[in-house]
Amino acid sequence: MKNTFGASVSVTLFGESHGPEIGAVIDGLAPGIPVDEAAIAFRLSLRRPSGAISTARREGDEFRIVSGVFEGHTTGTPLCILIPNTDARSREYTKGVLRPGHADYAATVKYHGYEDYRGGGHFSGRITAALTAAGSILLDALSARGILIGTHIARCAGIDDAPFSDDLRADLKRLNTLPFAVLDEARGEEMKAAAAAAAEAGDSVGGVLETAALGVPAGIGEPWFDTLEGLLAHALFSIPAVKGVEFGAGFSISDKKGSEANDAFLLDGGKIVTRTNHNGGINGGISNGMPLVFRCAVKPTPSVSAEQRTVNLASGEEETLRVGGRHDPAIVHRARIVADSVTAIVLCDLLAQRYGTDWLGPGAGSNTGGSGS
Amino acid sequence: MKNTFGASVSVTLFGESHGPEIGAVIDGLAPGIPVDEAAIAFRLSLRRPSGAISTARREGDEFRIVSGVFEGHTTGTPLCILIPNTDARSREYTKGVLRPGHADYAATVKYHGYEDYRGGGHFSGRITAALTAAGSILLDALSARGILIGTHIARCAGIDDAPFSDDLRADLKRLNTLPFAVLDEARGEEMKAAAAAAAEAGDSVGGVLETAALGVPAGIGEPWFDTLEGLLAHALFSIPAVKGVEFGAGFSISDKKGSEANDAFLLDGGKIVTRTNHNGGINGGISNGMPLVFRCAVKPTPSVSAEQRTVNLASGEEETLRVGGRHDPAIVHRARIVADSVTAIVLCDLLAQRYGTDWLGPGAGSNTGGSGS
Amino acid sequence: MKNTFGASVSVTLFGESHGPEIGAVIDGLAPGIPVDEAAIAFRLSLRRPSGAISTARREGDEFRIVSGVFEGHTTGTPLCILIPNTDARSREYTKGVLRPGHADYAATVKYHGYEDYRGGGHFSGRITAALTAAGSILLDALSARGILIGTHIARCAGIDDAPFSDDLRADLKRLNTLPFAVLDEARGEEMKAAAAAAAEAGDSVGGVLETAALGVPAGIGEPWFDTLEGLLAHALFSIPAVKGVEFGAGFSISDKKGSEANDAFLLDGGKIVTRTNHNGGINGGISNGMPLVFRCAVKPTPSVSAEQRTVNLASGEEETLRVGGRHDPAIVHRARIVADSVTAIVLCDLLAQRYGTDWLGPGAGSNTGGSGS
Amino acid sequence: MKNTFGASVSVTLFGESHGPEIGAVIDGLAPGIPVDEAAIAFRLSLRRPSGAISTARREGDEFRIVSGVFEGHTTGTPLCILIPNTDARSREYTKGVLRPGHADYAATVKYHGYEDYRGGGHFSGRITAALTAAGSILLDALSARGILIGTHIARCAGIDDAPFSDDLRADLKRLNTLPFAVLDEARGEEMKAAAAAAAEAGDSVGGVLETAALGVPAGIGEPWFDTLEGLLAHALFSIPAVKGVEFGAGFSISDKKGSEANDAFLLDGGKIVTRTNHNGGINGGISNGMPLVFRCAVKPTPSVSAEQRTVNLASGEEETLRVGGRHDPAIVHRARIVADSVTAIVLCDLLAQRYGTDWLGPGAGSNTGGSGS
Repeated sequence: MKNTFGASVSVTLFGESHGPEIGAVIDGLAPGIPVDEAAIAFRLSLRRPSGAISTARREGDEFRIVSGVFEGHTTGTPLCILIPNTDARSREYTKGVLRPGHADYAATVKYHGYEDYRGGGHFSGRITAALTAAGSILLDALSARGILIGTHIARCAGIDDAPFSDDLRADLKRLNTLPFAVLDEARGEEMKAAAAAAAEAGDSVGGVLETAALGVPAGIGEPWFDTLEGLLAHALFSIPAVKGVEFGAGFSISDKKGSEANDAFLLDGGKIVTRTNHNGGINGGISNGMPLVFRCAVKPTPSVSAEQRTVNLASGEEETLRVGGRHDPAIVHRARIVADSVTAIVLCDLLAQRYGTDWLGPGAGSNTGGSGS
Repeated sequence: MKNTFGASVSVTLFGESHGPEIGAVIDGLAPGIPVDEAAIAFRLSLRRPSGAISTARREGDEFRIVSGVFEGHTTGTPLCILIPNTDARSREYTKGVLRPGHADYAATVKYHGYEDYRGGGHFSGRITAALTAAGSILLDALSARGILIGTHIARCAGIDDAPFSDDLRADLKRLNTLPFAVLDEARGEEMKAAAAAAAEAGDSVGGVLETAALGVPAGIGEPWFDTLEGLLAHALFSIPAVKGVEFGAGFSISDKKGSEANDAFLLDGGKIVTRTNHNGGINGGISNGMPLVFRCAVKPTPSVSAEQRTVNLASGEEETLRVGGRHDPAIVHRARIVADSVTAIVLCDLLAQRYGTDWLGPGAGSNTGGSGS
Repeated sequence: MKNTFGASVSVTLFGESHGPEIGAVIDGLAPGIPVDEAAIAFRLSLRRPSGAISTARREGDEFRIVSGVFEGHTTGTPLCILIPNTDARSREYTKGVLRPGHADYAATVKYHGYEDYRGGGHFSGRITAALTAAGSILLDALSARGILIGTHIARCAGIDDAPFSDDLRADLKRLNTLPFAVLDEARGEEMKAAAAAAAEAGDSVGGVLETAALGVPAGIGEPWFDTLEGLLAHALFSIPAVKGVEFGAGFSISDKKGSEANDAFLLDGGKIVTRTNHNGGINGGISNGMPLVFRCAVKPTPSVSAEQRTVNLASGEEETLRVGGRHDPAIVHRARIVADSVTAIVLCDLLAQRYGTDWLGPGAGSNTGGSGS
Repeated sequence: MKNTFGASVSVTLFGESHGPEIGAVIDGLAPGIPVDEAAIAFRLSLRRPSGAISTARREGDEFRIVSGVFEGHTTGTPLCILIPNTDARSREYTKGVLRPGHADYAATVKYHGYEDYRGGGHFSGRITAALTAAGSILLDALSARGILIGTHIARCAGIDDAPFSDDLRADLKRLNTLPFAVLDEARGEEMKAAAAAAAEAGDSVGGVLETAALGVPAGIGEPWFDTLEGLLAHALFSIPAVKGVEFGAGFSISDKKGSEANDAFLLDGGKIVTRTNHNGGINGGISNGMPLVFRCAVKPTPSVSAEQRTVNLASGEEETLRVGGRHDPAIVHRARIVADSVTAIVLCDLLAQRYGTDWLGPGAGSNTGGSGS
């Protein structure tokens, strides 16, 4: 299924950085989900480059929903969202010079030179605008069912944000309003300063995103292959520049003793919970009702103006490259809403598989499949 | 598709720790692949518990291939491998007491109490025997096409193995012969000692596996969703106890500058390679012809004899648990062949998608789909 | 996914006619479904050759369920059923002589000569024993939810059975007890006589199966591609020898006027029904709550002892063939339980997609995915 | 995957009859396939209503390709085609009155009343314009590999066309140029006259389409579930109004003896062929190199102006309906190009699975996956 994710609720992405339009098709949505266009516009603004530490490209992101919505609600049929590309300056891109850290070489082998090389083409981070627009509808649908997703920049340019507090719900709600999603504003300013400094040096910085999902019912995921970790990671690695995904204590759990790593079970007012959450809300590939917590390693933006060695496919020679164009010294802050969106796709898909296609909409429970005759 | 992985070459797992048999079905295999039963037996022995730092359970692993093989070669039809369970002591397991770190609670919510709870049931690491048997056939098929996969215990109980040497091919070949797969034998002995010490204290240790795949052609994977990283991670998280997956420089790349993280392109005798491999052989979700390199964080075995707090579902009360039975103080050394197997599934699937279903067998190239009339 | 059907509830088939065992894996089943082994044995007996108009091959069909069932109920994990091949006489088959009407030629091109050619190998009707065993569990699960499936031999050797009566439920119940499933016993005797006469002449006969499914809720299926007709047909064409599938009035509807073909809507005690059922219970690819009704054209068994012209691949020459071995002069009566089984797979899959994975089991309704925290 | 078809080459449809735009996304296409926009426009014209026996709706079908094409060739990334709806007169549709023979009732149960009911919404035959546009690119790609697909109106209003001649290639080539695709023009005139007569009586007629595909290599398809018949039928039942699909001799084969139904093998200049083609080019679910031949039963258009009994969901009462709006007295002639398109999707998908994703493009053979290091 290639550029599509999801078995019950699925999202397909299409478009190139400098083509006429990019977009997404969501299929399998429950009918009757309210579509909040203002929320889509807001989430697109969170992804949009802005300010000192983002590319100067102006992206209007004037989206249009051309199917699957009628009178403000999803119909249950495939929903297509389109976003035109309005500020694409193709002349700045030349073919054949492989940009280190980019997909240029891998792409030209795969596509035999037929790929649209301008601005990264189909590999461009630009495509995440379509992913964000699609994700916005799903995030709202999950929220209506009590599932809250949010992400903070846990680390950027080597600077750590504060950890999640004891009031995770409040943390997530606040994060979801912030253009630069940190729990500790002072640390956020340090991150921005470090990114700006890197930008001035013609360089870029990376970071780590930490996402939490609250309210996910226990019992979601499969023991083998379609584990909840596996499906989330599958989708999260689509976020451009993500090179690692870890759940709960993640890589640090490998240094613990079993007696430290295990999460003891408790009764909390009759509800079974765990004292700690080193497993990130997942045991045996299946949600255990605790918050899902995971982190994505985001590499520094590969487009840097520093001089780099590379190969020119046209000449067949090595040469020195200085990447021009408009680029981000950091993308971790923009990628955060993409992490939320991708998480929403995976959860919507698994919840619809488990509880049926109506579960995310107002029809949940009203149609229990009683005998037809 | 739940407990199945793969679109062109697929593997389905079934079985419970204490049921009559476990097994795997491989579909989509090229016809004519030689099936080396001795190699299967050898790889099963690498996974089998043995020695001081493994469970005392005796697993004979007498596998039978009941379909899809004829006169020593794959037929191209679904191949089913069965492994009987011969030494299952069910009386040691009791229902309702949730073992911390295990899937017991998640499973009982998912399966409403109908799950086979004995020895972890379908969640048992035992099922990886079937995965290893299936993987063995695929590893051999890849090897015949010049693709070599191997894994070392990069870290265990906080002790690091040596890194891969400059002669990666030699490293992998040697690792594939070792029961305890380390590059530095002395470090391996330290790891074993630490694991044995933990075992004596009724505890367990975790570790990190590092896998490399050599000879993977450039151009494999998709830009969105079905990225090579995403598909590998999807499958790797099926290895019980894996809580993190990272590619190339992984989480450490997030602290680098762009100018440091990028892998410069060079010409090496006319072939395009990169000087460094911080991206682990993958750009934009697609292989770039460099070795694939990735790491899996393996948590310590959750079955420890130390006292733990938990909940008894039967009584509805909290209680103290001391897990009996036979358990591993470490599984990282046994999981290594499972990492190889899972990697082989993903690569076989993607290669068959890209080059066709015959590519892994002797029919490759002989049937190019010339017009039928 | 090749030899697998189903997105939520899936069935994978494996095995060869003369291999050690054939079998099926069912994944995605709800936990807690009672598994009635006597019912499986009975349905296998309906498929088994017997009497004058079937092959003399003795098939014991001693099935074993080796996973996914615990204490008499499905666990919700993959269920594997195995059936050993006990009476396979391989010496009667020779390689290279293409049997007309069989898959021999298509198979040898596909599998490059590595296929197990004995007795049809993986193409053998024998594999439908595994399909029938799997289907039996699903048929029982559907029945517990008020969905009743049954098939009659609507035509055999040019002789028509009586049509379904006004009491479709009674018809189906009775058919499900009969070894030779006809509504009019006298017509059935004529069919048997015609088949026996063909057998004596070294020839074979075909027929038409008509299946009905009662109690299927309205609203199942998709408008495009995954239409209910499309999914049923997809699966029904797996029944060996089926060459046509039609719904409702089928091919005869193409000669009607629109005013005749349309099914008028009525209120029947408040319930919306149609006066006629020319559309076979499906409009726009989606069930409308009326009985599903469809027919499969079954070609005559291709193994006939009459002399036939063919090609010998070994010699590269044309030659004359007289197929030996034990064969059926008719299979339509045995295929009928396979039609029921295949229908059950499609319906279980679609119902589980629509209402969730628990819907077919006792957990339906008890786990509505309320917020986990 | 719902409104998507295909595992390697896939097509997703979206849009509603009276929404802003309809469209299709094709994924998995080989890079470098020339995209002939004039051919798309021509094939859209074959589907477009025109003349006396089609609806008066004016459909401009001004398509735009917004992704996946660069400098006139496919890039290998998802290709999105959009077609705006320009002449939608929504006021002619009212909600709640169930049109017999249409999806209205099934849809409202499925979508809980949130469906866009105007003009059939997502169920509208209008959506086949997107399918035709997508199919056009695939038909051209197949043609470049020697695979020729064509369809004639084998029967309409009870009038039979002439059968295919001995020169099937010439037949198909000629059919592909005709707006009303019959082999015998005189019969075509009779069909049109019969359709016009029905139109005058406020009624409609149906028919049968017969499709052939020449040049399909032997060895395509799977023995179980993903049979070539099953996959073609799966997709063909998406053509609105199709109620039956049969291959080769189809339903009539069930009245033959085995000795008559079998297709004898011959050598034709060294190539293995069959004397007859009663199996429609498919044995055991797999292509045998002979022409694929199959027929679809197309029911009469359900929109007729004759008075019909139905139910009004708003009032909850039965009532009499006379369908207004602009409708086709026949759609069989317009559906023919849709049959070609759907056939092309299935064949492209199976060929790409078997021979690899490059097979349909110029990269076929140039990239055989030699070892990457």
